[in-house]
Amino acid sequence: MPIRFSAGVWAFDGCGDRFMLKGYREGKPVAERIKEAAGIPGLSGVELNYPADVTDANLAEIEEALQENGLQASMIGVDHTGQRKWQYGSLASPDERVRREAVDLARRAMDIAARLGAGQINIWLGQDGFDYCFQVDYQKAWRWLVESLAEIAGYRGDVRVCVEYKPKEPRTHSYINSAAKALLLVQEVGMDNIGVTIDVGHSLNAGENVAEALCLLESHGKMFHFHFNDNYRSWDDDLLVGSVHLMEYIELVYWLQRVGYDGWYSLDVFPYREDPAKVCRESIAALQGIIALVNRMGISRLDDLISKGDAIDTLAYIRQHILPA
Amino acid sequence: MPIRFSAGVWAFDGCGDRFMLKGYREGKPVAERIKEAAGIPGLSGVELNYPADVTDANLAEIEEALQENGLQASMIGVDHTGQRKWQYGSLASPDERVRREAVDLARRAMDIAARLGAGQINIWLGQDGFDYCFQVDYQKAWRWLVESLAEIAGYRGDVRVCVEYKPKEPRTHSYINSAAKALLLVQEVGMDNIGVTIDVGHSLNAGENVAEALCLLESHGKMFHFHFNDNYRSWDDDLLVGSVHLMEYIELVYWLQRVGYDGWYSLDVFPYREDPAKVCRESIAALQGIIALVNRMGISRLDDLISKGDAIDTLAYIRQHILPA
Amino acid sequence: MPIRFSAGVWAFDGCGDRFMLKGYREGKPVAERIKEAAGIPGLSGVELNYPADVTDANLAEIEEALQENGLQASMIGVDHTGQRKWQYGSLASPDERVRREAVDLARRAMDIAARLGAGQINIWLGQDGFDYCFQVDYQKAWRWLVESLAEIAGYRGDVRVCVEYKPKEPRTHSYINSAAKALLLVQEVGMDNIGVTIDVGHSLNAGENVAEALCLLESHGKMFHFHFNDNYRSWDDDLLVGSVHLMEYIELVYWLQRVGYDGWYSLDVFPYREDPAKVCRESIAALQGIIALVNRMGISRLDDLISKGDAIDTLAYIRQHILPA
Amino acid sequence: MPIRFSAGVWAFDGCGDRFMLKGYREGKPVAERIKEAAGIPGLSGVELNYPADVTDANLAEIEEALQENGLQASMIGVDHTGQRKWQYGSLASPDERVRREAVDLARRAMDIAARLGAGQINIWLGQDGFDYCFQVDYQKAWRWLVESLAEIAGYRGDVRVCVEYKPKEPRTHSYINSAAKALLLVQEVGMDNIGVTIDVGHSLNAGENVAEALCLLESHGKMFHFHFNDNYRSWDDDLLVGSVHLMEYIELVYWLQRVGYDGWYSLDVFPYREDPAKVCRESIAALQGIIALVNRMGISRLDDLISKGDAIDTLAYIRQHILPA
Repeated sequence: MPIRFSAGVWAFDGCGDRFMLKGYREGKPVAERIKEAAGIPGLSGVELNYPADVTDANLAEIEEALQENGLQASMIGVDHTGQRKWQYGSLASPDERVRREAVDLARRAMDIAARLGAGQINIWLGQDGFDYCFQVDYQKAWRWLVESLAEIAGYRGDVRVCVEYKPKEPRTHSYINSAAKALLLVQEVGMDNIGVTIDVGHSLNAGENVAEALCLLESHGKMFHFHFNDNYRSWDDDLLVGSVHLMEYIELVYWLQRVGYDGWYSLDVFPYREDPAKVCRESIAALQGIIALVNRMGISRLDDLISKGDAIDTLAYIRQHILPA
Repeated sequence: MPIRFSAGVWAFDGCGDRFMLKGYREGKPVAERIKEAAGIPGLSGVELNYPADVTDANLAEIEEALQENGLQASMIGVDHTGQRKWQYGSLASPDERVRREAVDLARRAMDIAARLGAGQINIWLGQDGFDYCFQVDYQKAWRWLVESLAEIAGYRGDVRVCVEYKPKEPRTHSYINSAAKALLLVQEVGMDNIGVTIDVGHSLNAGENVAEALCLLESHGKMFHFHFNDNYRSWDDDLLVGSVHLMEYIELVYWLQRVGYDGWYSLDVFPYREDPAKVCRESIAALQGIIALVNRMGISRLDDLISKGDAIDTLAYIRQHILPA
Repeated sequence: MPIRFSAGVWAFDGCGDRFMLKGYREGKPVAERIKEAAGIPGLSGVELNYPADVTDANLAEIEEALQENGLQASMIGVDHTGQRKWQYGSLASPDERVRREAVDLARRAMDIAARLGAGQINIWLGQDGFDYCFQVDYQKAWRWLVESLAEIAGYRGDVRVCVEYKPKEPRTHSYINSAAKALLLVQEVGMDNIGVTIDVGHSLNAGENVAEALCLLESHGKMFHFHFNDNYRSWDDDLLVGSVHLMEYIELVYWLQRVGYDGWYSLDVFPYREDPAKVCRESIAALQGIIALVNRMGISRLDDLISKGDAIDTLAYIRQHILPA
Repeated sequence: MPIRFSAGVWAFDGCGDRFMLKGYREGKPVAERIKEAAGIPGLSGVELNYPADVTDANLAEIEEALQENGLQASMIGVDHTGQRKWQYGSLASPDERVRREAVDLARRAMDIAARLGAGQINIWLGQDGFDYCFQVDYQKAWRWLVESLAEIAGYRGDVRVCVEYKPKEPRTHSYINSAAKALLLVQEVGMDNIGVTIDVGHSLNAGENVAEALCLLESHGKMFHFHFNDNYRSWDDDLLVGSVHLMEYIELVYWLQRVGYDGWYSLDVFPYREDPAKVCRESIAALQGIIALVNRMGISRLDDLISKGDAIDTLAYIRQHILPA
């Protein structure tokens, strides 16, 4: 099965930060961003956030833009972060009405995901966490997370619910901060259509080996979706794929093939100062290069080396394929 | 119920590191170390490693030393780390015979824990992990962990098996690296007598808020044992309790009381250059001071502040109790 | 000499981040923010950014607002970060015209600092750095930094130029990333009126012990200004003072008194979700509490304990002053 | 000028850690370790620690072993870490007699370095630092460092004194913790024969971009010596070169060539569980591969790309040379 590449359309927007709230460049309407994405070789899908990119009002317009540009909706992200009402939490807010509203938002996103053919929503809970010691009741928060997610996943079984973990930002501590905790949580929810999204950068922030996180989720049947990007471990820099953790990416691609992951390879980059289309193009080129490298080295040969267990031999074998003699 | 303090007897030994293999001071026989521990005000228990401190040969001697010094064995730690045969793993070693031997060691430790009245063993898997990408098969390792622990926990139900997580050291990556992963693992083993040890320093290394980790384990019935110490987040420095993360300790003690934790408060310090008895004495004094502080502030008043949800108000309340006006 | 407290007026603004570009609350005109600051007990100064808060156009209005509210301008910060033209660097931009413009901006800020009575400008070079390997020429960048700062400091000797270091954000790597590098740089510029600002949070991000950084700068005559806040080491969270690193703050206050630092104690907090006035009020209360604690313990008694060199004894002495017996 | 490779002979010893004080394998006499080093293709030098490897007593034996095996002494490391008398510091010990002894040790090492033809000593001050807040007097420590190093460098001008920085381990905080601070220090000592050693792993621990650190030192004439290894940023893992930070190594090798560094490329690896000769062999192969890659890409072409300033273009160019199309 051919690998399908996708990208979040927010990459093509203005990309601001707390010191440049107006963005490092001018933002663009979503239709233009979809069009820009369509120009990237190898890309066949886009992720759209609801209601930041796709709204109840522009649904028809989005459908048309996707069709015109020959792109699929790969994922509908639920925006539980970017509005002030979520600032103290959404699915785990101490305020019951806020939780209610957050659940409803996710359910509407599921309907949209069904209609646009994405078949899955992504839930990243940026505001659900805490900034200080003594700020929250951790036990209640966990219960609310389980209950809210159960209500969402139970709403319709034909749409997958992908829970994306991240250790921090915008809170100094997020509740769902590792692959293991995300897995624990979705197992507790206990429905077939709920699983986990690994964002490679978030996994690096969590101190994980990404391939190990993949294996853990895969062997529990919960490896649903992937976000690709890179960073320097301490923060979610959302950089060009493979620009920092090349070796980790090679190992990850090997394991993606070995476990037969057949979901999207979706880019979640945030190019503040670089040209977004160029960053996406080069990220896909990097991934394709890594895939070609892994194929050239051979999955079964790598299996063999790993089972022999001499890491230096294995790394020498890889080095021989990436550096001149 | 009064709080019971305990300490690992390795603190009183020579305490070496890779640059000072002979130790920063002379080591001492275990009987002397037990005697030294007995002189620490408030201490009623000691943790002993098998077969590093207690062995099949010195069991009677240890029993006598405990009795003479009026100390209980609080925990038998299984040494799956300090012998060369474990260097590529123990319970998750790729070598089936090594796994067998590691399981047997833990079972013998259970018998000793029963005989000495500790009633529990601690399993910290220092060597089970990896140093390089492409070094191990993560899926097999997980399966071996589950199988080995099931064999151990199933051996006798009257001894508790406490699994202690740690993100790294001596491997650059340990398999069981967070509270959530440890919980996932012991749930998968699925027996009542297996649970988790939180070592506060390891939890800080894992980027966790310790009180949150406690809550997660407690609400799943798996909060079995506690190791107290402190560090600077990036490494397991095993410092004096509260010397760095005072606010986290205050929050932790509040939650320990709130959830009704009734296990040991056990010190796992490693005083390379300081007097071990002094470090233990001061660690207990610090914990007692924090407990007194929490009581003075009042659990229900703190409950109240947390449920009101204004972190600055809560921190101001705490500040008023620790700093002069 | 009484301690003078100050705060950056940006704390009272909307406080956005990349996921909440519109701010976690509504922003306010600078005059209102000055007024809000004036209501904080103990506060006698405000830091203003040029041209973000104070502009060439509103100078008279600002002067009036300060006078009406009984506040001094403690510092004029030069905004080399928040406009798109600086996005690839300012004083170390590869583009000579940009460097020229950045120097001119700082010089105008010096004139304003003189006129408003602040007598000092703060230079934090948020955009001067890099995001990727192979992105910049490090040797040229250093030369440009030295040259630009020499032009600025040489402009008028009656205004101090304070260089604030920070290891990252908004770039993944900033050039001036530690106290030692900032000191090296200002020594290379070689003028009396250029020195260093320590932002406590940035120092923690840099892996420094803050008191040590203070001592290094002080003993070289370059400890000019201080920003107070707190964080969890890995990122510049700009939290409530003392909410995380209480012990470090106690040590810092002891050394501030011991070396006779007589500059401002200025708050640089960024309360996304908390009430800014409350955060400032409580930050000052915390600092005053720490100052009172240090005085109660006694500088000379602490000197004595440090010179005796038993860290556990010293920490026990401190613990006895902050925790109940 | 051909690149000269060297390795520390401690790599071939038992390699213990605090949990395996007896070493992960049997240790070997220094003569055997020199012989083992001699078998590594491309290696022409060895680093020896005084008095851990070379002593006053075995000097003739060492000379003979070097000659027999056709190896040069590339560096004499002064062991200011591995004996108990240094545990509270050496060149910055509060005890004047200890400082005296530490200076004398370095001077004797200089005589040995002259006699063995190494012409340089390496000073890494593992014990000079602190573990706790309030433990040391930072200002005195800095003065002692400057004074002690001045006495050492002034002893004989024909031997270079290389100061190696490291942020932590075995202390939780080392005084000389970054390239900038090491540079500041050696500039303050103010002699021509004192400069800095970059250990790549320590530089990564310090949060530095290694190439930037090189550039800073080189442009101040203080880039004296290099230790190569790799790690995961948070600790000095001393792993196989390039196994983690491949991109950083490519950038570093480019800059080493560009600035014309003509010192040793010396390995400082610590293979606990791997075969030391294999790790050294593969580290040199990796470095040679990276050098060949940089030459294939062309220094002037890379200069050009950097001066154009589009990081994505540059990284794409590099990707095209390491990954299949």
